[in-house]
Amino acid sequence: MRKIGVVDTTFARVNMGAIAVDELRRMGTGFTVIRRTVPGIKDLPVECKILLEGGCDIVMALGMPGPKPIDKQCAHEASMGLIMAQLMTGKHIIEVFVHEDEARDERELAWLAERRTREHARNAYWMLFEPEKLVRMAGTGQRQGFEDVGPLMGGGYRH
Amino acid sequence: MRKIGVVDTTFARVNMGAIAVDELRRMGTGFTVIRRTVPGIKDLPVECKILLEGGCDIVMALGMPGPKPIDKQCAHEASMGLIMAQLMTGKHIIEVFVHEDEARDERELAWLAERRTREHARNAYWMLFEPEKLVRMAGTGQRQGFEDVGPLMGGGYRH
Amino acid sequence: MRKIGVVDTTFARVNMGAIAVDELRRMGTGFTVIRRTVPGIKDLPVECKILLEGGCDIVMALGMPGPKPIDKQCAHEASMGLIMAQLMTGKHIIEVFVHEDEARDERELAWLAERRTREHARNAYWMLFEPEKLVRMAGTGQRQGFEDVGPLMGGGYRH
Amino acid sequence: MRKIGVVDTTFARVNMGAIAVDELRRMGTGFTVIRRTVPGIKDLPVECKILLEGGCDIVMALGMPGPKPIDKQCAHEASMGLIMAQLMTGKHIIEVFVHEDEARDERELAWLAERRTREHARNAYWMLFEPEKLVRMAGTGQRQGFEDVGPLMGGGYRH
Amino acid sequence: MRKIGVVDTTFARVNMGAIAVDELRRMGTGFTVIRRTVPGIKDLPVECKILLEGGCDIVMALGMPGPKPIDKQCAHEASMGLIMAQLMTGKHIIEVFVHEDEARDERELAWLAERRTREHARNAYWMLFEPEKLVRMAGTGQRQGFEDVGPLMGGGYRH
Repeated sequence: MRKIGVVDTTFARVNMGAIAVDELRRMGTGFTVIRRTVPGIKDLPVECKILLEGGCDIVMALGMPGPKPIDKQCAHEASMGLIMAQLMTGKHIIEVFVHEDEARDERELAWLAERRTREHARNAYWMLFEPEKLVRMAGTGQRQGFEDVGPLMGGGYRH
Repeated sequence: MRKIGVVDTTFARVNMGAIAVDELRRMGTGFTVIRRTVPGIKDLPVECKILLEGGCDIVMALGMPGPKPIDKQCAHEASMGLIMAQLMTGKHIIEVFVHEDEARDERELAWLAERRTREHARNAYWMLFEPEKLVRMAGTGQRQGFEDVGPLMGGGYRH
Repeated sequence: MRKIGVVDTTFARVNMGAIAVDELRRMGTGFTVIRRTVPGIKDLPVECKILLEGGCDIVMALGMPGPKPIDKQCAHEASMGLIMAQLMTGKHIIEVFVHEDEARDERELAWLAERRTREHARNAYWMLFEPEKLVRMAGTGQRQGFEDVGPLMGGGYRH
Repeated sequence: MRKIGVVDTTFARVNMGAIAVDELRRMGTGFTVIRRTVPGIKDLPVECKILLEGGCDIVMALGMPGPKPIDKQCAHEASMGLIMAQLMTGKHIIEVFVHEDEARDERELAWLAERRTREHARNAYWMLFEPEKLVRMAGTGQRQGFEDVGPLMGGGYRH
Repeated sequence: MRKIGVVDTTFARVNMGAIAVDELRRMGTGFTVIRRTVPGIKDLPVECKILLEGGCDIVMALGMPGPKPIDKQCAHEASMGLIMAQLMTGKHIIEVFVHEDEARDERELAWLAERRTREHARNAYWMLFEPEKLVRMAGTGQRQGFEDVGPLMGGGYRH
């Protein structure tokens, strides 16, 4: 039985962890979910590493950085930590960060947080169970949250 | 008996370490506290790692970065070091940084430093003794110091 | 039989992985190619490390960062992760990033992505099979994608 | 017999290493000093690590970054390296950097470099021999070089 | 017999590797030189680490970052990687980077690249064979390429 970790924060303004668990369960069975919550995004890296070393095959790291410069810096630090945690464990962490200034208002922000979380939950599922599906989607301009942008027009090379 | 480390600096203008110890003792018993002080925030990472490797289950890293660009850079470097120290030990460090330019005057800055330290001391206690409490607070817009911002209005998904 | 890894993203708008595999096959034989696709550039470092530890002798990491400041930051984080992955495995990863704002329009961007990928595929091949060829090209102002700039005029020293 | 390392640079415009050794000798006995000099601040991290692994209990890393943006970046890289060296060895490195643009003229810069070096030499001594002295100075707004700023007025909490 | 590694790039516009080898040979005998060339500066860290683990006692890493913001970021990433490679191997890497915007024209740039490379080759030689010579040069304001700035006037402390 595979194990998927889901870690979110009390700082976020949407229950991203619950959304991720819901979407993962819609994708399929054959795995258990371990859920954890930490105060802020800088607490995510070590918590993800603890889960990966505790048997999780992949972990989703969910957070909502604020709009100020110091928040951007925290997000950068958290991202670097998540990359290091992956390199130390040899397993993937799917980072799902929704920045407050990506949306025009609170309603759109809530919508964006849910949609990006759900789309990345599908990525996590595919990475674990159907990695060849991602190869078929290579270079197709996928986005998580807002609309996909699609492949470039004018690209001469087709597979 | 669990052990909680508390490390602050001589650079800070508030005795954050003493406040943290006071708040931890209000939270409960069943743990001992190890207190250390270093000159500045860039000395925190290795001191926290020494405590974690010496048996502490979690450590609070407390500091007050100055307002200049070089101070911001030091805070960034210290934060990166704290994240690395966590990844190397597999244990949490609760970073409590209060930036001088977050407050309007010295009185508010002192108030902010004390309140953020106390709120994060509670986080540290919960992470060690009641981690499921944090899961129940997921996505509720918690802040340490200033007012919580709460969950987003308009978020369609409820747990 | 040597093994070359090729990892690209679903975020990119050109199938860079397919182009890389095509160019590698034009360069010669005597190697097998392992192809993987991940969602975004920050997922590249650990995937490359997994391939390198799984027997690949060199890996190409292909991506197309967007034009916004947050995209630049992601590219920086991915690059740092790729450098760490190399240092941890003692093997080379050829990073091929094409930034959306490097080109004037979509047609040029598609052209640039293909050409840079092909030129770096040649570098990857030479690094693995003919490293002395690169020594002969030292200091000659090679660029991948746009025109080479060539060696400096006025440089008094010639080998 | 404890060992204290002192590493400075040929790039600096003040013999910071000699000043550090002089101040350490004024502080007390019971230790030997190992002195090294490297070209620039980015050469400090590995030299400090070599000394710490060679038996030093603590090392002072002394440098004078220039005023240009590239110099600031070098200082950032050196600082990150010094933090990593500490985490890898589990010992403290006291970073003493004096930025050229901190002073109004060459005379003040020379004064600042000497004073900051001497004050940090005392910190290094206390960290090794009297760490409880630093705990008593927690939150008192110590600065190295310019005047201490002292504790905040209005801070309600007293130890 | 000691071994010195020299690694440069095909991206550079001056054959810095050949210049470094030439200068090292003028400094003395008693060592062999291992020469490698990689595509760009971000390929330097792992190549240097490979050489250091393969028996080199010190390595020179030579590159010419371009003038654009993305080039500055690449130089930063390469520098961080070079510092990590040093910390992982416990040996020095002498970074010799010449930024295109340091010079007024191509002729000066070529001159600067050659002179800085030669001066750092001497540093590499001294670090390996005469480290005490660098201690005697501590705090004397050495620069590589442009004129040395010398020690500060007004510095009260003399060794």
